[in-house]
Amino acid sequence: MINTDPKVVDTILQIIEILGTLAFAISGIRHAAARHYDWFGGFVCGIAVAIGGGTLRDVMLNATPFWMTSPMYILCTLMAQFIVIVFARSLKRLDNAWFAFDTLGLALFTIAGLQKTLDYGHPIWVAIIMGCITGSAGGVLRDVLLNKIPVIFRKEIYAMASVCGGVLYWIMISLHVSVALSAIATFLFIVVIRFLAVKYHISLPVLKGE
Amino acid sequence: MINTDPKVVDTILQIIEILGTLAFAISGIRHAAARHYDWFGGFVCGIAVAIGGGTLRDVMLNATPFWMTSPMYILCTLMAQFIVIVFARSLKRLDNAWFAFDTLGLALFTIAGLQKTLDYGHPIWVAIIMGCITGSAGGVLRDVLLNKIPVIFRKEIYAMASVCGGVLYWIMISLHVSVALSAIATFLFIVVIRFLAVKYHISLPVLKGE
Amino acid sequence: MINTDPKVVDTILQIIEILGTLAFAISGIRHAAARHYDWFGGFVCGIAVAIGGGTLRDVMLNATPFWMTSPMYILCTLMAQFIVIVFARSLKRLDNAWFAFDTLGLALFTIAGLQKTLDYGHPIWVAIIMGCITGSAGGVLRDVLLNKIPVIFRKEIYAMASVCGGVLYWIMISLHVSVALSAIATFLFIVVIRFLAVKYHISLPVLKGE
Repeated sequence: MINTDPKVVDTILQIIEILGTLAFAISGIRHAAARHYDWFGGFVCGIAVAIGGGTLRDVMLNATPFWMTSPMYILCTLMAQFIVIVFARSLKRLDNAWFAFDTLGLALFTIAGLQKTLDYGHPIWVAIIMGCITGSAGGVLRDVLLNKIPVIFRKEIYAMASVCGGVLYWIMISLHVSVALSAIATFLFIVVIRFLAVKYHISLPVLKGE
Repeated sequence: MINTDPKVVDTILQIIEILGTLAFAISGIRHAAARHYDWFGGFVCGIAVAIGGGTLRDVMLNATPFWMTSPMYILCTLMAQFIVIVFARSLKRLDNAWFAFDTLGLALFTIAGLQKTLDYGHPIWVAIIMGCITGSAGGVLRDVLLNKIPVIFRKEIYAMASVCGGVLYWIMISLHVSVALSAIATFLFIVVIRFLAVKYHISLPVLKGE
Repeated sequence: MINTDPKVVDTILQIIEILGTLAFAISGIRHAAARHYDWFGGFVCGIAVAIGGGTLRDVMLNATPFWMTSPMYILCTLMAQFIVIVFARSLKRLDNAWFAFDTLGLALFTIAGLQKTLDYGHPIWVAIIMGCITGSAGGVLRDVLLNKIPVIFRKEIYAMASVCGGVLYWIMISLHVSVALSAIATFLFIVVIRFLAVKYHISLPVLKGE
């Protein structure tokens, strides 16, 4: 039986959000470290991954950016910075954990983006795009701040997992499946796609240059 | 005699908008192809050119970004992607056509930016800047996503054609010329400047570095 | 005795704002010149530094971007462009003056960002972040448009001076010191930190890459 006590669900969601935010922030800070940025530069790259996508979404939805309503995201980024500075050597051994948390974050942020956009009264195709932006635009912003080619435009499937999740959500909602069940299925679907993509190095076809 | 039946005018404007959006998206996708981006990266670069300028304008005007109100822009970008993938070899021969459509797009998007900004009650100098942003910021965003120096900062006159059009619009409106006639004159003025700039390689002076 | 006639204070603030905007715009245009951008590219880089941070703040605060309410910022950037083009050779000798104006600008824009954010009803930790964004995001945008690694992520303390100022402001307001006195102390504090940082080459620690 799935425990559907709202309090338990809420706590689980909050734990996933913290782990996802931590993983996103750590990804930004570690990339900054590879470029020998200073602590401030690392913090900006970390926060960019953690809140960049959701902030772009909120600005386009004409909503107050979500990070301005709770200090949780700033605190997670500060903790991520502490972890990267103090445990720099041990981090590499934990790569699998960070990958797992990052995937949970991608799935959760996608669903948050989908639902917030629908709550604001926009059609589902806008919500799918916003879900994708929420999950993956932060990583693009990070690479822009690092003066690099955005990695998600050339590596294994990442943003497309988010889009596929959005399409599944659309189908399930259209078939009158409950919102909670649709969200859980979407969450698992995104996680599975992302895991398979990395495990079997599945990428999208590359465009042929002239 | 110019046909001023509103339906005919509307249809012409819509055709220009579709051709312009197609040309803008194709420019983004072809640049992405030259960098060996995957299909997702190509789509993002395409949509960035097609909607980037107008979205920046709408966010600053505190308006709902225009692309969220009709799926037309997403569909045009998908069609552009299909064209680039399937007809990659033939595209080069059509360069003159894409240049023409891109110029029509620049002129149309400039006027759309001018008029929307005035509709929101801002002064004409803000509208001229917004017209220029609507027409040319998408191309800058594309180059940022490609990790390249923005081409419009160093090549033939592009954004300045849009600014000159805005100034002509200002003068005509101040002289109490009708909005329709001012818009048509501005449209043609921008197209002519851009054609002449490319034909005779007219650029702005270059700043001297120290 | 400090002259507290509101008119005199207002005039002083306006002069600092014009000098700061000029210094910010000149920094953008000179960097563009080093990349051999044309006049349009120079103008865009100049305006990016001058208004980029404040515009990002205003978009997130859901306010009309400040530069749309007065042509002062555009005119300052045009004047900056004129100065760079005509006096290119003499500018180098004035580097100390530009550094001083830039520091005044950083301090003033930080306080403007702090106070505007508090006026919009956000908590102080949001205001500190917004103060930092107002003062330093324009420089990051400039470097993105120049396709360079943002300089403030690797050089002497810059954005952190703004954050320290914000924290001082917080402490003073919490101790019920008057807004005017808190603002003056914050202003001087930021200026002193920045001067000391450049004079003694004080930087933040660098993150260690793996």
